[in-house]
Amino acid sequence: MVILGAGFGGLQAAKALARAPVKVTVVDRYNHHLFQPLLYQVATSVLNPGDISAPIRTVLHAPNTTVLLAEARSIDAERKVVITEAGELPYDFLVVATGATHSYFGHPEWAQFAPGLKTIDDALEIRRRVLLAFEAAERETDPERQREWMTFVIIGGGPTGVELAGALADLTHITLPQDFRRIDTTQARVLLLEGLPRVLTVYPEELSERARRDLQARGVEVRTGAMVTNVDAHGVQVGDGRISARTVLWGAGVAASPLVRSLGVPLDKAGRVKVTPNLEVPGREGLFVIGDVASILQDGKPVPGVAPAAMQMGRHTAQNIRRQIQGQPLLSFRYNDRGSFAVVGRGAAVGLTLHEKIRVKGWPAYLAWAGIHIFFLIGFRNRASVMLQWLYYFVTRRRKVRLITGGPSDELLPHSVAVPSLAEGSRSATPAHVH
Amino acid sequence: MVILGAGFGGLQAAKALARAPVKVTVVDRYNHHLFQPLLYQVATSVLNPGDISAPIRTVLHAPNTTVLLAEARSIDAERKVVITEAGELPYDFLVVATGATHSYFGHPEWAQFAPGLKTIDDALEIRRRVLLAFEAAERETDPERQREWMTFVIIGGGPTGVELAGALADLTHITLPQDFRRIDTTQARVLLLEGLPRVLTVYPEELSERARRDLQARGVEVRTGAMVTNVDAHGVQVGDGRISARTVLWGAGVAASPLVRSLGVPLDKAGRVKVTPNLEVPGREGLFVIGDVASILQDGKPVPGVAPAAMQMGRHTAQNIRRQIQGQPLLSFRYNDRGSFAVVGRGAAVGLTLHEKIRVKGWPAYLAWAGIHIFFLIGFRNRASVMLQWLYYFVTRRRKVRLITGGPSDELLPHSVAVPSLAEGSRSATPAHVH
Repeated sequence: MVILGAGFGGLQAAKALARAPVKVTVVDRYNHHLFQPLLYQVATSVLNPGDISAPIRTVLHAPNTTVLLAEARSIDAERKVVITEAGELPYDFLVVATGATHSYFGHPEWAQFAPGLKTIDDALEIRRRVLLAFEAAERETDPERQREWMTFVIIGGGPTGVELAGALADLTHITLPQDFRRIDTTQARVLLLEGLPRVLTVYPEELSERARRDLQARGVEVRTGAMVTNVDAHGVQVGDGRISARTVLWGAGVAASPLVRSLGVPLDKAGRVKVTPNLEVPGREGLFVIGDVASILQDGKPVPGVAPAAMQMGRHTAQNIRRQIQGQPLLSFRYNDRGSFAVVGRGAAVGLTLHEKIRVKGWPAYLAWAGIHIFFLIGFRNRASVMLQWLYYFVTRRRKVRLITGGPSDELLPHSVAVPSLAEGSRSATPAHVH
Repeated sequence: MVILGAGFGGLQAAKALARAPVKVTVVDRYNHHLFQPLLYQVATSVLNPGDISAPIRTVLHAPNTTVLLAEARSIDAERKVVITEAGELPYDFLVVATGATHSYFGHPEWAQFAPGLKTIDDALEIRRRVLLAFEAAERETDPERQREWMTFVIIGGGPTGVELAGALADLTHITLPQDFRRIDTTQARVLLLEGLPRVLTVYPEELSERARRDLQARGVEVRTGAMVTNVDAHGVQVGDGRISARTVLWGAGVAASPLVRSLGVPLDKAGRVKVTPNLEVPGREGLFVIGDVASILQDGKPVPGVAPAAMQMGRHTAQNIRRQIQGQPLLSFRYNDRGSFAVVGRGAAVGLTLHEKIRVKGWPAYLAWAGIHIFFLIGFRNRASVMLQWLYYFVTRRRKVRLITGGPSDELLPHSVAVPSLAEGSRSATPAHVH
């Protein structure tokens, strides 16, 4: 059997089948499993990429499991083969767990100006843009252009947008101020734009309101009801107004991995497969779709595209495959919502637990969030390492991974940056006592 | 005054001038200082880039110090200005500490086939190539081509080549074997080619011999007297023989940063400036050249291009600048050689200490090497974090940072890789009990 994708869903399915009487091939286009909930901390220089990822081959070391680094291009459900760039891969059981990607609401040209946050490469690109923006501002002498470099716009007030905005505000207010001479990084603007009337719309109004206040207390300008109508290299258009900014980040839309379009079955408006209660593609026995690519209602509400749901779907599908092998009927999936958290920053988070009955916020929510995330990070070493680094950041507020990588800086700095008058800088660079 | 380069030399000069009555501008094309001696551990998946680097702005936080992210293009010593891509930077004192780069002995076209190891981006590129080679071998079905992917050639038997070869051999023999199904990574060949009659020629013969035996014990094929005459995408030419290999790494030649050519003064054959005893450019008062770009003899022998020498030169130059400000005569530089180490792997290293009087090898050399390197890593956090990760690797032999980054894998895997018959793979991927 074949599993496409080694995210939360695919990994759990493969692990749960480790001792099953099947041979499992796991296909992923990356060689590592990624702990996506902490990816924003890589993008904001707190964690290393290696802290939140692990080689798929090491995680899935069971003798019945083969890992293939390849990209699935399409699925031929008639012939029961997956077409990859490395050839065709026949299957009897197939689990599609290829996750979600960014959606720019019909404006793919915005992607170059407003990167999203799904992969480690995305996070490194965001880190590079954010750090380079401060370097460019420090070099810039024109106040107008300097303001553009010092303005950061995050589009989308969901959990990713809120996390990025909070972490960027802390970066500008706490981590960076001592390090620059010509700019005052505390004057940087961080704007969070949300089209709906409030942020974190999946949470009750009370928690949305708390998150908004926590963001504002950190210096984030939160604008709700703000519909973005255009994005370019110098800012975003919001209705009639324009915000000039050189760094725009995208946390607004997600869409299912386009792979499932090749199935030729009905998709919902986010491009997800409407699966049967046992997570199969209708009419395709043995073809399961789980995680962010699956669309399923439970008690009239969609099961959310979150890691716990994907993990439960993965384990459930593994169980169903075992049952089918043993000739037993398949079971329907039920999502057990143990709770969810969104974090703004140290001591500031909101959460719902125990089937949405308990609402938490502030320090209790933050500590619960941190505990859960450390617990779920794969492998004791990552856990210890991340804890150590958080503790370090917690105490010193210094960020260790402020690395601009991806080539020498002269290629990285935007070519449109004005050449500042370095004579001015050098005046201050003349020894006070010597001439 | 201006310091070009925030490597070991430039950083020490800037730090030693932190309380001096001068204003210091430090120019670097990267935003981070790099602890280069451990860079090979990033290239071989043991450490994260963030573990061995620190933001220059954070390290040089003194109020008299300004950091500028820019690349120096040339120096006009007549007009006393540095020309950067961001404009001109006048100076009264200038410290050139721009270090060394790779030299391909007049064959720059080899660079694409045999990357060297100087920057974090270099290390990530090597890591990517090495990890992808095993993925490609796992996918490959043609035994000939598979052998090419499983052959790793390191050109140059100096400390970098020895360290890379030892770490790669441990990777193939200790870390990876459990993780692949179709290939036996212990069958991978790691070849270390050196044109001279022995490796580590800066060390006494006895230690070279020990390093060779340590390498061979780890499975490295050491070939001395092997002059490489060509490098291409499929291997290297060594005299009359050819070694087929898809991964070739370069540890052979270094040359001074080309910036100093613009000084118009005599250079040695590695492109370094022949400086006066007080490390000035002859005839250019107040223009100092230190570290790997400086050529200076001491007791008839060249001062080696190593981190301790660069650090001492940086501190010495800072002292000379203070003296000149106070109207005192400059002092001549003397390199105090406290020792040097080259490491093959866990428990295997060689070293010379106390002015080359004491030779160490094996475990004592390894432990001294590890202690010194942890001690010199900047900042307690890096030290603790690196120690933790080494301890983890030491006990488990698992490498945490086996990350292929830089884009999705289908773009990374060489296009010339044959499409393997996945039908074969899928036969073994068919459930044992189901058909």
